[in-house]
Amino acid sequence: MAECVIAVDVGGTTMKGGLVSRSGRVLRYERRPTPRGEGAERVVAAVADFVDDLAAPGAHTPLAVGLAVPGLVTPERAVFSAAFGWRDVPARAFTRADLPVALGHDVRAAGAAELAYGPARTAEHVLYLPVGTGIAGALVLSGSLYGGASGWAGQIGHIPVHPDGLPCGCGQRGCLGLYASASAIAAACGEKSAADVVTRVRAGDPEAERVWARAVEALALALTTYTLLLHPTLIVIGGGLSLAGEDLLGPLRSRLTALLPLPEPPEVEVSALGVDAGLLGAALQGWRAR
Amino acid sequence: MAECVIAVDVGGTTMKGGLVSRSGRVLRYERRPTPRGEGAERVVAAVADFVDDLAAPGAHTPLAVGLAVPGLVTPERAVFSAAFGWRDVPARAFTRADLPVALGHDVRAAGAAELAYGPARTAEHVLYLPVGTGIAGALVLSGSLYGGASGWAGQIGHIPVHPDGLPCGCGQRGCLGLYASASAIAAACGEKSAADVVTRVRAGDPEAERVWARAVEALALALTTYTLLLHPTLIVIGGGLSLAGEDLLGPLRSRLTALLPLPEPPEVEVSALGVDAGLLGAALQGWRAR
Repeated sequence: MAECVIAVDVGGTTMKGGLVSRSGRVLRYERRPTPRGEGAERVVAAVADFVDDLAAPGAHTPLAVGLAVPGLVTPERAVFSAAFGWRDVPARAFTRADLPVALGHDVRAAGAAELAYGPARTAEHVLYLPVGTGIAGALVLSGSLYGGASGWAGQIGHIPVHPDGLPCGCGQRGCLGLYASASAIAAACGEKSAADVVTRVRAGDPEAERVWARAVEALALALTTYTLLLHPTLIVIGGGLSLAGEDLLGPLRSRLTALLPLPEPPEVEVSALGVDAGLLGAALQGWRAR
Repeated sequence: MAECVIAVDVGGTTMKGGLVSRSGRVLRYERRPTPRGEGAERVVAAVADFVDDLAAPGAHTPLAVGLAVPGLVTPERAVFSAAFGWRDVPARAFTRADLPVALGHDVRAAGAAELAYGPARTAEHVLYLPVGTGIAGALVLSGSLYGGASGWAGQIGHIPVHPDGLPCGCGQRGCLGLYASASAIAAACGEKSAADVVTRVRAGDPEAERVWARAVEALALALTTYTLLLHPTLIVIGGGLSLAGEDLLGPLRSRLTALLPLPEPPEVEVSALGVDAGLLGAALQGWRAR
């Protein structure tokens, strides 16, 4: 009976939950929809139900609970999330089980998992960039996750790549996320998901190709700026968009090489952990809470 | 007779040299023109003459030599400088005196001086941004100078603030330095120095006001991006442009506040060490070489 923790990655549309061993092995795995539109209390209750179901007696004995949530967060409190509308929810509220509980920020938790289990493990300076509904980065500088003055560094989704460009909900113009987030790519083509857009790109659809090229260009500009500022060893793209694989990496590497004569562009890869990096990161939070 | 080191900051147009105590007191100070147009060997010889004159017997006994130079540099070698056209010059070549010699990168040396003697001393995450002929930054992250994979992080002067903007000598478009370096500001107004442009701004000259506003906007966009990525505690602007004081800081702070609703903009100050930060940084290199 392996020791494990309960981990739940609370995403905007889907919750991924499971039991995870110390070595990062997923012993049990389940996905549930996040009742995002139904108010903060419903989301908290849905997470608690999920955690408690995972805590039910079985083949494994969980020792702690780790959760990855969006917004502003400390290990003890979910301070604020615009996506869920919650404010100052104590970690305790997310389970009825008598286990230690710790919260982590979704992107930084996923970055911690990349650092613990992915190829980022052996790199010194890494940008982990999950691209999904939004875009945010986890910065590994000199081998450690970097938070900055507020602890919330890495807001790459709102850097102004086109200062005279589209207006953003944040009040600014031309933010990276408007061009390159998976949801923006899907919306620009009238599709449900960026995966549908990739399918159309592969089929040679001109509208999809234009939207895709615009997304790649915006990402390349942002990563050029990031590289000039911070000279990372490795950039790992995660989240839903990473599933595009070479359809993303090929043109992105080519634009980065064109935009960055010196220094040489860093290596750019898609995440080996994929969309489960958040779950593994939540588990790391759990192990630390023990 | 105080202990001291010989320090020379080798700038593109002027060399600043002196004898500097351990506490950063400048015991002797002299400026000489840099014979930049006359070839790499002439520049090396001029630095060596300067160092040796400072080493001549006097009221103080220097213990080592520290030099701040542009380009790619290690403590032992000036690897490459486009400005001076030199390649792989050993530190020894810069003096005939029998003293330990160490080289430092001009911007990072100045940043180290800000960290040792300026208000950056007590701040955790600092961007030191000298704006002169070019623009480069020294990044203090979690209290330490950060170099990235190559050691040469901080190339802020070439981040693309206007991707469809002016062509730059680096082969790209819309680099920050094209709009906001002191030399670009002067050139855009047909003046010799940015100080002349500031004088015209104060007099209400519309052309100068337009160029100044464009420079401030480009700096504000770059610092918005920097802040979203790295959440610094403090931004210190140095170099020639810092002499504009409130004429720079006033509009820059106001644009940053408009561009950065969250997080709150970091403090922005001009360097208290001013254009001598490089000299003090060169001295720190000397103390370390002892």
